[in-house]
Amino acid sequence: MGTMSKVCLEDIRLAYQRIKLHVHRTPVITSQYFNEQSGRQLFFKAENLQKTGSFKARGACNCVLSIKERNPLVSGVVTHSSGNHGQATAYAARVAGLACTVVVPRGTSEVKADAIRSYGAELIYCEPTPLSRHETCAAVAAETRAAVVHPYDDYDTIAGQGTIALELLEQVPDLDAILVAVSGGGMISGIATAVNELRPECKVIAVEPDGKHLGPSLRAGRRLWLDPPRFISTLADGCTTQQCGRLTFPILCRLVEPTVLTVTDDQMAAATRRFWQRAKHVIEPSAGMVVAAALSDQLPAELRRVGVVLCGGNLDLDRLPWLSAGGAAPHALG
Amino acid sequence: MGTMSKVCLEDIRLAYQRIKLHVHRTPVITSQYFNEQSGRQLFFKAENLQKTGSFKARGACNCVLSIKERNPLVSGVVTHSSGNHGQATAYAARVAGLACTVVVPRGTSEVKADAIRSYGAELIYCEPTPLSRHETCAAVAAETRAAVVHPYDDYDTIAGQGTIALELLEQVPDLDAILVAVSGGGMISGIATAVNELRPECKVIAVEPDGKHLGPSLRAGRRLWLDPPRFISTLADGCTTQQCGRLTFPILCRLVEPTVLTVTDDQMAAATRRFWQRAKHVIEPSAGMVVAAALSDQLPAELRRVGVVLCGGNLDLDRLPWLSAGGAAPHALG
Repeated sequence: MGTMSKVCLEDIRLAYQRIKLHVHRTPVITSQYFNEQSGRQLFFKAENLQKTGSFKARGACNCVLSIKERNPLVSGVVTHSSGNHGQATAYAARVAGLACTVVVPRGTSEVKADAIRSYGAELIYCEPTPLSRHETCAAVAAETRAAVVHPYDDYDTIAGQGTIALELLEQVPDLDAILVAVSGGGMISGIATAVNELRPECKVIAVEPDGKHLGPSLRAGRRLWLDPPRFISTLADGCTTQQCGRLTFPILCRLVEPTVLTVTDDQMAAATRRFWQRAKHVIEPSAGMVVAAALSDQLPAELRRVGVVLCGGNLDLDRLPWLSAGGAAPHALG
Repeated sequence: MGTMSKVCLEDIRLAYQRIKLHVHRTPVITSQYFNEQSGRQLFFKAENLQKTGSFKARGACNCVLSIKERNPLVSGVVTHSSGNHGQATAYAARVAGLACTVVVPRGTSEVKADAIRSYGAELIYCEPTPLSRHETCAAVAAETRAAVVHPYDDYDTIAGQGTIALELLEQVPDLDAILVAVSGGGMISGIATAVNELRPECKVIAVEPDGKHLGPSLRAGRRLWLDPPRFISTLADGCTTQQCGRLTFPILCRLVEPTVLTVTDDQMAAATRRFWQRAKHVIEPSAGMVVAAALSDQLPAELRRVGVVLCGGNLDLDRLPWLSAGGAAPHALG
């Protein structure tokens, strides 16, 4: 707890200078309907409109451009990702003029695989386990001398994601809280780092899919997850990693509220559909998860002005979450 | 052809003053992807983000507020609509503090019916023919002394829709053309009236669903449609009225390009899906129809900077157009 974090606001400011020509300054959406439904003022940061359709473009661009700055002769980059980070790394490599290989687990939707290929990256399939992903990625790196772009457990990636908070606190300076989806923890680490220095009175609150069990580890200040690391089964396909990273977890323990908001598949499917219906924005289930948290009674009443990070808008439009979710009856969701 | 139109830019400016507190100044969306696909600069006017989810809020607010200005003691308003104009009139009546009855054809989706009720309006069902709609609406008006809010064939409605162009030409002053969906013709009449005075070199181009046959009438300068008026079968459920109005048609003949862009169901389903996928905005098939036109080779190559009015974003999210359209194979559409 006493250790200094290895990433600070200055790193995030430098990241912003590095990436700002290659990413969008995404708008903040407000909605009278959702304000009335939640009884708060909600400010939706629309990373679904970000380059490549998710916030991951920020971290990937910062990481890849930093790699190239440090080693202009690097041969290429490699990463592993179930989707959004893969697209983002492929995009970042194209921006940097580097070759890119993306390791994806078998079962990744064709829509996401095609999107990664569309940025010029090469795909390699592995088994759908965290171990296989890491091993395959390391093997490619060893063989091709490509640099690894970690999806979350890398200070450059974290600093890139932190630029979301730089923008959001300029767009809405007086927030009481920001709600952020957590998977490996890269986005929330970056956001919490920026918020802690820019507006320490603003709470950063983690939102997780049912089955992640972040809360006990966060409150204990140590990793209570069972090894080996596993993926959890959730509609939030951007949030399937159960354990936070070795670099991100200490940042969460230091800077994120100990109470975690947990969302079920049915709740996130309903909230995703409701956001499409009323706000007319396509968001993915991981973002709908955060919308559900913003509408939840679990959120303390004294938080009046709340930022809601809509992490992305990538999903298979032929398989909508509310048409595949277990018990979600359409007429109860509108 | 020599007759003066009964609506002019000044009416549209007055409409804007009347309604601006009650409607959104909608943003203009740009997309590198759609620019590359079309080979032009496209500027999407996002009326899907308008109050009630469609541009109809503009015309309805101007019409209802004008009625109340002229007759402060009016008992209420009544209209007939398959959906968007019904929601918009219900909203406008609530803004004006008036009772509202909406006549809807049997077969209107429950999603749209519920949306109309949610603004406090009463629904009355009629047969799904233009004649039955008019007769039922007239009967309600005679019985309750409510004023009729026509969906398109009313100069106040037309002036309200024209405010789209006031905003768009402020947001993007140097457009070569604006593409507008046509049903009864209220929106394109208002837009063409504003454009003709503000930027006469900008072409206003009609986009229609297959089966409407606007082109021959427009080029002949007279109504060649077969009576009685009928609805056409199209995915563009906001554009089912075959004949333009008695007030709108002469305005179209005077101010709209004689070449009409015609879009099939499969084309509009594909374009709607592609817009959701890439621009992350929920638009309805009538808006997807205009996106399809913007991507079409039918559009003259010299039109470089093109406004595309996304008329609305209301649809049943449990029945997506690309999952119900005849021959639209998902993988060909991405």
